[in-house]
Amino acid sequence: MRVRNRKGASELLQNNPQYVILDPEASKGKWSEIFGNDHPIHIEVGSGKGNFVTGMAAQNPDINYIGIDIQLSVLSYALDKVLASGLPNIKLLRVDGSNLTNYFADAEVDRLYLNFSDPWPKKRHEKRRLTYKTFLETFQQILPENGEIHFKTDNRGLFEYSLASFSQYGMTLQQVWLDLHASDFEGNVMTEYEQKFSGLGQVIYRVEAKFNQ
Amino acid sequence: MRVRNRKGASELLQNNPQYVILDPEASKGKWSEIFGNDHPIHIEVGSGKGNFVTGMAAQNPDINYIGIDIQLSVLSYALDKVLASGLPNIKLLRVDGSNLTNYFADAEVDRLYLNFSDPWPKKRHEKRRLTYKTFLETFQQILPENGEIHFKTDNRGLFEYSLASFSQYGMTLQQVWLDLHASDFEGNVMTEYEQKFSGLGQVIYRVEAKFNQ
Repeated sequence: MRVRNRKGASELLQNNPQYVILDPEASKGKWSEIFGNDHPIHIEVGSGKGNFVTGMAAQNPDINYIGIDIQLSVLSYALDKVLASGLPNIKLLRVDGSNLTNYFADAEVDRLYLNFSDPWPKKRHEKRRLTYKTFLETFQQILPENGEIHFKTDNRGLFEYSLASFSQYGMTLQQVWLDLHASDFEGNVMTEYEQKFSGLGQVIYRVEAKFNQ
Repeated sequence: MRVRNRKGASELLQNNPQYVILDPEASKGKWSEIFGNDHPIHIEVGSGKGNFVTGMAAQNPDINYIGIDIQLSVLSYALDKVLASGLPNIKLLRVDGSNLTNYFADAEVDRLYLNFSDPWPKKRHEKRRLTYKTFLETFQQILPENGEIHFKTDNRGLFEYSLASFSQYGMTLQQVWLDLHASDFEGNVMTEYEQKFSGLGQVIYRVEAKFNQ
């Protein structure tokens, strides 16, 4: 998600250390301590403006959510939502999705969400897709055995690619949705992007994929 | 595919033993002998009126094709096409898809096609779907190590189910198409059903899945 630079975004993040993790490396292995409880930890890699992570945190008070995005302005809009919600079970982290092992210990994360990730449609940019094998390796390391990735997108090419990539990595597809909004899936929390594009008639794809070790 | 009973269908099949295998059990292990060469053998389970198998045989003269359907009248229409084509690399087999090990020896088949199989949408009919695990077991037995199933359908529910079923059986998804006719896939031979429903704007799904032993 690209947004215009927001004036004061950096200060806003700096001024809310109860929600925004300012020293990510120091958090590794200490997330339960940071949240103050032993609830499962679910992260969203590429959390954009935070609608999903905030909505999920409201729906599931016994799960701790971490929204991860590298873009300053985007993360500051997510912070607006977190502040408005007043929920205790969300944190925001401004880091890159490729180095998550720097910020999470082995198996410290219980589930990982990818929503409307950048499709990088050109073949030469394949390695930048969040469902490329090197990302899956990183994700596998911070998830437990049989850990799950829940992924949704409206991008047909990225979804086709990702199903094959998960499978070729040795993951098992638990369930697949080829038109999420026409299905009986319950509790779907829409991202900002999803609200906009499903409103335009775009089909939303979803998959739950499980690592096998 | 359901069609009206065709008068004389049985006689038509009986009168063309050069194309219709009348003693299926006796063919087990002898398909190269029947075709008179050692070319790879590709079968279509549920071959309907035969457009796919005839088109593929015309496109690939060095591959032997067997169209399999249990319905007498349907198979007789396929025979019309085979007779009109005059191609030497097609045979038709009137048997049930669940007992293929009775008609093919281990690894005797090089590739298996499923096209627009009956979706059996009710959960209680899951076991009748051709991508249910008991069918996959049978298919695996007659295919070689790393044998492939190429499957296409317009039925969203069946495709969602089948991707998960292949994956949970331990197969690897080699490639997935979520809108085959909008892709750059080359050499697609349409079935009768595909011509009709893609003409009505229906998306066609396709997957190539590989057994891992």
